Amino acid sequence: MPDFRPPEHQVAGHRASANKLGPLIDGSGLFYKPLQAEDRGEHELAFYEAFSTHAAVPARIRDTFFPRFHGTRLLPTESRPGEPHPHLVLDDLLAGLEAPCVLDIKIGAITWPPSSPEPYVAKCLAKDRETTSVLLGFRVSGVRVVGPGGTVWRTERPEVKALDTAGVRRVFRRYVSSVADEGMDCTLAAAVYGGKGGVLSQLRELKAWFEEQTLFHFYSASILLGYDASAVAASGGEGGVRVKLVDFAHVAEGDGVIDHNFLGGLCSLIKFISDIVPEIPETQPLGPS
Amino acid sequence: MPDFRPPEHQVAGHRASANKLGPLIDGSGLFYKPLQAEDRGEHELAFYEAFSTHAAVPARIRDTFFPRFHGTRLLPTESRPGEPHPHLVLDDLLAGLEAPCVLDIKIGAITWPPSSPEPYVAKCLAKDRETTSVLLGFRVSGVRVVGPGGTVWRTERPEVKALDTAGVRRVFRRYVSSVADEGMDCTLAAAVYGGKGGVLSQLRELKAWFEEQTLFHFYSASILLGYDASAVAASGGEGGVRVKLVDFAHVAEGDGVIDHNFLGGLCSLIKFISDIVPEIPETQPLGPS
Repeated sequence: MPDFRPPEHQVAGHRASANKLGPLIDGSGLFYKPLQAEDRGEHELAFYEAFSTHAAVPARIRDTFFPRFHGTRLLPTESRPGEPHPHLVLDDLLAGLEAPCVLDIKIGAITWPPSSPEPYVAKCLAKDRETTSVLLGFRVSGVRVVGPGGTVWRTERPEVKALDTAGVRRVFRRYVSSVADEGMDCTLAAAVYGGKGGVLSQLRELKAWFEEQTLFHFYSASILLGYDASAVAASGGEGGVRVKLVDFAHVAEGDGVIDHNFLGGLCSLIKFISDIVPEIPETQPLGPS
Repeated sequence: MPDFRPPEHQVAGHRASANKLGPLIDGSGLFYKPLQAEDRGEHELAFYEAFSTHAAVPARIRDTFFPRFHGTRLLPTESRPGEPHPHLVLDDLLAGLEAPCVLDIKIGAITWPPSSPEPYVAKCLAKDRETTSVLLGFRVSGVRVVGPGGTVWRTERPEVKALDTAGVRRVFRRYVSSVADEGMDCTLAAAVYGGKGGVLSQLRELKAWFEEQTLFHFYSASILLGYDASAVAASGGEGGVRVKLVDFAHVAEGDGVIDHNFLGGLCSLIKFISDIVPEIPETQPLGPS
């Protein structure tokens, strides 16, 4: 029996505990996400099943930007002994990173699918207006940075929710700064945000797909950024930078229309990161033009 | 004294009459837009003043995609004799077109500036959800097509508001069809939507600017498409295609962030038009890359 435990790199969502369901990892590179309540879990499962076999999704996009889906699995839960709960089995997106630094960004000025009932729209809209979603087209959901000596800097929930535009800018600078205190040296910016396999290059490839794809609208989905602080420090160069989409409980059918809401937020994110570190040289997208 | 009259090519907004203020033209190429009530007029005037002299706006963008601003002018009104009303003096965007065909498209899934008071947000949101704004990232506000022999096809207000995605698609096909009845031959698609100076090429140039500009957020602004049915019919080629932004009563400061809401809608519009007429060859943007 593998040793299931909550991932220490988790930055958003419920954390697994004696009272609560939360994601687990098993140390072999898999990530187990409990199916959410109120049919969100079923909805997310249906998305993974449709997406992972969809002939119109380029393999390069699926492999580069999405967690691989391995079906579902019933796992025992601490909170309800004897009542195993279904989990999505996915790749652990941060497996193999010695010192994972993570930034979770919810994309889109609108986080509610158009078909949502009124109270849900009102609830989401209030949150979209209180946070930076409406203004920036995205908001930070969580961040974790590992500094020298393994010191960890992470944001707490209320703090993240209260971030304004200037605060979000500080988080994006802090995410690529090597010092553990309030310093914002941005010494890792070129390695993490810039370069051939860096965040900006990957985001631009993703953008090219979103300009064309009309299959899915990714309401309330996040982009998860990850890199390995140890590898970056050691090599000074590539640090296993990862750019992945996660959280698909509110994906809607595209019906032949592009996901202008996600695309707009993605373009804003690209410009936002470019402006923080203007010295990063412009890079070409990796993918097909 | 010039002969002021309501433009026959007007497709959206209030039409000037004995009881109502509305835009006027004078036959010399100028367009007079009455300042709107509830400080919207002052707001639009302030935008024109800021925009027309802003050093960071490229001349090519200003000249190609915006009406030229010539200040304000007090004009007598039929509805209130003796009480002249201030008007914005702008270029008549359709001057010189013998048989102007017009399509007015309000851009953006969100049409309310983030700082709007609650009742205004609720009102706009309801309209954005009832129309195609949330789904498509844009909605049609009005259309006028001149067919052979000068027959005019135009939509009425309630009809336009009720358009769903399929209806919007029909309007975009009808706009480039030469026949006056329900036929959708799309014979003018290549001349109007395609080609070097066509709609798609111009929209792509506009998009490149919106990926970079962080000066203004154009909430509730429209893109006005125009072409000359006579010229297209005569030459079979270029028909004076115009792509212009209009309606700036709800423009907000960009504050260093791109207008992801307008940009997302613009990308959706580009894809939407491309899909209607897939045989149009891909064209390069005209402007600097």
